Order: sequence, then C-alpha cells, then structure tokens
Amino acid sequence: MLTQLGKNAKRAAAELAVAPTENKNDILKAMAQALRDNSEKILDANAKDIENGRKNGMAGSLIDRLMLTPTRIEDMAKGIEEIILLPDPVGKILWETERPNGLKIQRVTVPLGVIGIIYEARPNVTSDAAALAIKAGSAVILRGGKEAFCSNCAITDCMRDAVKSTGFDPDIVELVRDTSRESSAALMRLNEYVDVLIPRGSASLINAVVENSTVPVIETGAGNCHIYVDSDADIDMAADIVFNAKTQRISVCNAAESLLLHKDIAELALIAIKARLDEKNVVLYGDEASRAICPDIEPADGDDWAREYLDYKMSVKVVSSLSEAVEHIRKYSTGHSETIVTENTQNAEEFLNRVDSSAVYHNASTRFTDGGEFGFGAEIGISTQKLHARGPLGLPQLTSFKYKIYGNGQTR
Amino acid sequence: MLTQLGKNAKRAAAELAVAPTENKNDILKAMAQALRDNSEKILDANAKDIENGRKNGMAGSLIDRLMLTPTRIEDMAKGIEEIILLPDPVGKILWETERPNGLKIQRVTVPLGVIGIIYEARPNVTSDAAALAIKAGSAVILRGGKEAFCSNCAITDCMRDAVKSTGFDPDIVELVRDTSRESSAALMRLNEYVDVLIPRGSASLINAVVENSTVPVIETGAGNCHIYVDSDADIDMAADIVFNAKTQRISVCNAAESLLLHKDIAELALIAIKARLDEKNVVLYGDEASRAICPDIEPADGDDWAREYLDYKMSVKVVSSLSEAVEHIRKYSTGHSETIVTENTQNAEEFLNRVDSSAVYHNASTRFTDGGEFGFGAEIGISTQKLHARGPLGLPQLTSFKYKIYGNGQTR
Repeated sequence: MLTQLGKNAKRAAAELAVAPTENKNDILKAMAQALRDNSEKILDANAKDIENGRKNGMAGSLIDRLMLTPTRIEDMAKGIEEIILLPDPVGKILWETERPNGLKIQRVTVPLGVIGIIYEARPNVTSDAAALAIKAGSAVILRGGKEAFCSNCAITDCMRDAVKSTGFDPDIVELVRDTSRESSAALMRLNEYVDVLIPRGSASLINAVVENSTVPVIETGAGNCHIYVDSDADIDMAADIVFNAKTQRISVCNAAESLLLHKDIAELALIAIKARLDEKNVVLYGDEASRAICPDIEPADGDDWAREYLDYKMSVKVVSSLSEAVEHIRKYSTGHSETIVTENTQNAEEFLNRVDSSAVYHNASTRFTDGGEFGFGAEIGISTQKLHARGPLGLPQLTSFKYKIYGNGQTR
Repeated sequence: MLTQLGKNAKRAAAELAVAPTENKNDILKAMAQALRDNSEKILDANAKDIENGRKNGMAGSLIDRLMLTPTRIEDMAKGIEEIILLPDPVGKILWETERPNGLKIQRVTVPLGVIGIIYEARPNVTSDAAALAIKAGSAVILRGGKEAFCSNCAITDCMRDAVKSTGFDPDIVELVRDTSRESSAALMRLNEYVDVLIPRGSASLINAVVENSTVPVIETGAGNCHIYVDSDADIDMAADIVFNAKTQRISVCNAAESLLLHKDIAELALIAIKARLDEKNVVLYGDEASRAICPDIEPADGDDWAREYLDYKMSVKVVSSLSEAVEHIRKYSTGHSETIVTENTQNAEEFLNRVDSSAVYHNASTRFTDGGEFGFGAEIGISTQKLHARGPLGLPQLTSFKYKIYGNGQTR
C-alpha cells in the first residue's frame, strides 16, 4: 500500500519539479481557497477527532493543539498565501565555471523530489508542510498522528481536489491513511521513493525516526538553549535577554533552559536576573555557587544540565571562565541556540566561534532562531543536525542541487 | 571501546575546528613527510596484508588494490600536499543580512565535526580521507577493511605521530582497530560523537551502511550512467562519447552502462557506435529493435537496464522519443551521471531539466563527474543522494554552517 503511495508521489513529483513558479503559485492559491470553501467539512471532521480525544482522556493542552476553529482554518489559508509571496527556491544557479577543456558547469538548485513529514496531532502542519513542499517543487507524503486522523483526511482531500482543479496530479499531496505503527515504519524505509523524511514533534517521535529510518532524515531537534552571562556583561541587558528567552513562550525549542554566569559577575547578575524571573515564578535549579548567592534556588541534580524543561523552570550554574562555559555547552547543549551576553567583542567572537550550535548569539535572545525572524518566511522546522541544513528550514533548505554540464563533444 | 574513540575524536575536533588554515596545512605537511619517512615500515606492514591475502585466496584485482609500492606511497604523500594547496572551506560567509530590528545575521561555513569513513581494502583511502577531513577542520574516524589492517595501522600510526609533532591532539585521526562486524555496527550508531558517515566502496558496503546507520550518511553510490543519442545527434560525436564513457576506464562509477537511441537515428548511430565499441570487444545487450539492426547483439533480459556492469558490457535500447528516454532513465538510473548527445539545444535543455541525476551532460562524456575534472581538487567520493551534497564531494561539501547573530540587546 505504502509502496503504491510512494510510486504515485514520485511520478507526480516529476511534473511538479519542472513546473514554472506561476503554476506552483496557482496550486497554492487553489489550496488556500479550498480550505476556506471547505471550512465546515473540516470543522465537522475535527469535531470527531476532538470527541475521540476527550473519550480517550486526551490532555487539555493536546486537545487545544488538535482543535480547529474558523479562525484557525483562515490562518491556515493565510499561511499558504504567505508562501505564494516567497521567492521560488528552484532553478537558482549557485555556482558556475568554465573548465580549460571548454566544459561549462553550473550548480543549480532542484527540488528534493518526495518529502515525507511525520508529525503528531497538529492539523495545521498538514497544510503548512504541503504548501512549503509544493513551492519547493517537491511532492509530499504526510503521516500525521492518529488523533488528528479525521481532520487530516478532510484537509488533505480538499487540498488534493484543489491540486486537481489546476490540472496537476493530486498525488503531489498524499496522506498515509493507515495510522498504524507499521505504516510509519514502512515510510521510514521507503528509500526508493522518498528523498528525505522530516519528523516534527516531540523528542520521542524524532528519536524514533532517527533510530529507525533508512531514508535520509533532517532532524528537527530539541533545544536545551543556554545563555552565558560573561564577566563583562551589561547586567540589565542580561536580565532582559534571560527574561525574554525563558518566559516569552515556554513551550518552544528556542526558549532558554540553562543560565551560565561568570563568577566575577555572578552575584550581581543572578540577583538582577532572578528578580525578573520571579515575576513569572520561574523555578531555578542551581549548583552550590548559585545557591550560595540565592538560597531559595533549588539544588540541581546531574540531569538538570541536559534538561529541556519547556516550562517556567531553568538551570543555573556559575562558571570560572568563558572556556568553562563553552565546555559546559559543548557537553550538554542539543546544538540549537546559545547566547553570550558581554560588552567584550573579543569574548563574544570566541564564544560564537567555539560553540558548536546551529545559531550562536551575541547580546540577543535565543528566541530569534525562527524562519520568520531570520527573514526566510515560513519554515518547516529547526534543524539541529549538521548535514544538509542547520537552523530554520525555509524554502531554500528544502532543495537539493544538480550539476548541468554543457559540452561540444568533450571526452577524457 | 568505540565510545571512547568517539569521545576522543569529538574532544580533539573542537580544537581543530577553530584552527587557522596555516596550522591545518602544517599538520598536512607533517603527515606527507611522515609517510615518506616511514615508507619502509608501511611497506613491511603492507607485505603482511598481501601475504595474508594470498593465503586466503584473495583475487588478483583485490591484491592489486591492496598492494603498496614506494611509488604508491609517494603518490599518497603528494595527494596530501595537493590538499594543502586547496582553499580552506571553513569560515566562508555564505549569506548575511541585517534585520529591521538591527540583528546582523551571518551564515558561515563550519567543520562537520567528526567524519566517519567506512571503506574496504584500499590503504590509500586512509591518508586521502584523513587529509581531506583535516583540511575541512574535522576529526576523522577511519574504519578500513580487515584485509588492509596492518597497512592501515602503519599509515595511521605515522599520521598520528605527525599530528602530535605539530602540537595538535593526535586523536583528530583515529583508526578503528577492531575490524569485526560489531565494531562497524557500533560506529554506525555512534550518533553522539559522529556527525556523518561516508561509506566508500562496493554497492553492498554502501547498502549495509545506509540500512544500518543511525548516524547521518552521505551515500556515495553506484553509477548506472546513461547516454541518450537524440534524433538530432552528431553521430560521430555520439560514437566518440559512448566509446570514451564506456571504455576509457571500465571499473569506475562514472563509466557509461546504458545506451539509448532515438528510433529515427538508431540504425545509423548504432552501426557507427558498435564499430567503435567492437575495437574493445564490448558486448552489447539489446532490445528487439536494436537486435533487428545488429543481430549479433545479445538479447537483454529485464535486469540489464538496471545493471552497473563495470566491465566491457553495455545495454542498448531504442526509444521512440526524448520523453521515453527520460522515463527510462528515471526508472533505472542510480542518479549518478547521464548524457544527451544532440545538436538541438531545446531538446538538450529539456533532458538536463527532466533527468533527476547528480550530473546531467549535453554533448560530453559521463566520465567528467569527478572532483578533479570539476575543478574541486581531491574528492572523497561521488554522492548519489540528494541530501547535503550531490556529485563530487570536495572540500566545500565536507562542511556544515552555523548562524552567527550579532545584537545589542534584542528581545522578542
């Protein structure tokens, strides 16, 4: 079954790969309109998912993620329309040369082909991911969580009808309608038809995909993001940045989870930062040195340094040097985003060079690691691996390239 | 054991990652010199491998690949010295922007970190791969075939001594000295310490790595390369290109394996091409239409279209259109290199756009898909996957990137 799905997607992808920008945008326009036109059908389907979720005792926060409203469907349509406005990432000449033998070589961006997305119970991913893939010239195979099954079917059906109305093969958008573990495992081994798998969701979902997939994966990972307050930091700035990075939105991967303080500034900085974090009742888990400054800090256990709390919680540690901060980050970071707060540009540059994460900041909040904030427009996730693409995965990161070589009979 | 190796490599990689070009070149110079200085030791070790190989009935062609001579060791040293001359791929600003909020964002190339290489019985890969990884700022974990065990130990020992003599940590070059299947399997799951695995060698080795690795892989794949002779082809040029691509070196992945002929030109073209291939006694396996033209062509069975012969053998098929040629290639190609021979530039452009392979040629031999021929200098292999890098893997393809973001207190 999944093999047939893969075959169909690969066949449909071949036409889409060479489609001009205008045609791809026409598909997206039709998809956005179809979501609006079928709003009621989608809401009805979503109501069934919500009912099933409640019956099965789904947590309130998950019900909230699963629930669609007319406004949320309108946002999904608008999300697709924003992608229409983004530049086409396909067909860009990245590099060209002429060799002494007269061969002209171009490295040109091309679509990835077929992109598989494995995600959980957020129905808006269904339209977001499909729209990004199509603009990048790739077919998409969606495999959403079973909790959103009815919603995903309704959204996909209306997107496929929209694709068909533009004369393209609807198989550029496929939904895996078998939500068993077996179907998910089969998708992870569909190397013949799927060029890349992007898991979106919890750490356990992502780990399962990394562990079991033979298809190349772009890991969109967890964020144990650090803020290091250097001895030469502006303390007010440090407090603002920590407050923002920790509390502006706690549930996201670019929220800060760990605070490192240089010993020479630790006391003043910690008192100022803690005063701000207290406004939101952030619980701190600290080492001995930080607890000596603020005794109401909870003692950290060894696991705290590696923890992505996604909560009003943060670990805190005093370090004796910038090098110790870098070592600590290298040991515990997930490679997402880290900040140094300092007025010393040499220290800043050393931190930015030595810390091996997708985004490294001088005097700014980690919350900026985001496709929109980087000016990429919509993104499909934040990559924490080093292969292919790191950081926010915008349209340009959803392409591959090929070499086009022009000769006049050259042989070796 | 392997975990300790991984830890050591990751630790050593951190220093190498920020080393200036000059220091990396000093390491390479010392390594080249060490190979020369230890030539006898390496030859002695190699003699043991050859003796074991002969005892175990190793085929002559494999003995030849395994055997080192003073000239081959000198070539390995020269190979390292050529890498010294290549530009440093690390620290290049690929893109930069200033956002409306004043954040300055740079996308900068960085080393991959730790590169694992799994290969067979070619001891020269040991020094080639190590030198390329080091110039790209990464540590390398080498896992060569057990047939070359003594040679690889000797080569690695002298490279490690050379690294040490420059003041760097010798653990930037590690050899897995346990050549069991288990050690190989463990390396494929060393995600915490290894950033990418590159298999080099036979299709079965590569498949085993793709199948079993949880570490991201760059697949360096087989080449079932096609040449399509269009109705508007220059027949002499077609014959030259096919002759070169098929016979100049039969054992390599960019050699041509399949010939497609447009029906309108099939008879004239096939007679001319076959006359050239007959000089080298190339055996053709053809469909009915081609056998109707040349009855001494062997009948192709269904498997011939997908076969990478690596021999004086080639499949041949008559197609009724450029579209049929493209369809055939999409179905059977391994995505390596394909050529169209035609005087019609529109047909050429259609072929180059529609054929989904790493290198697509107009009027040139597939044999040019090579780091040296593309002007990249040395390469570590040819990638046939779409993720990260496609085609020849030169130094720039052995890097990742990070975002460096400069602020003055920005929060969201």
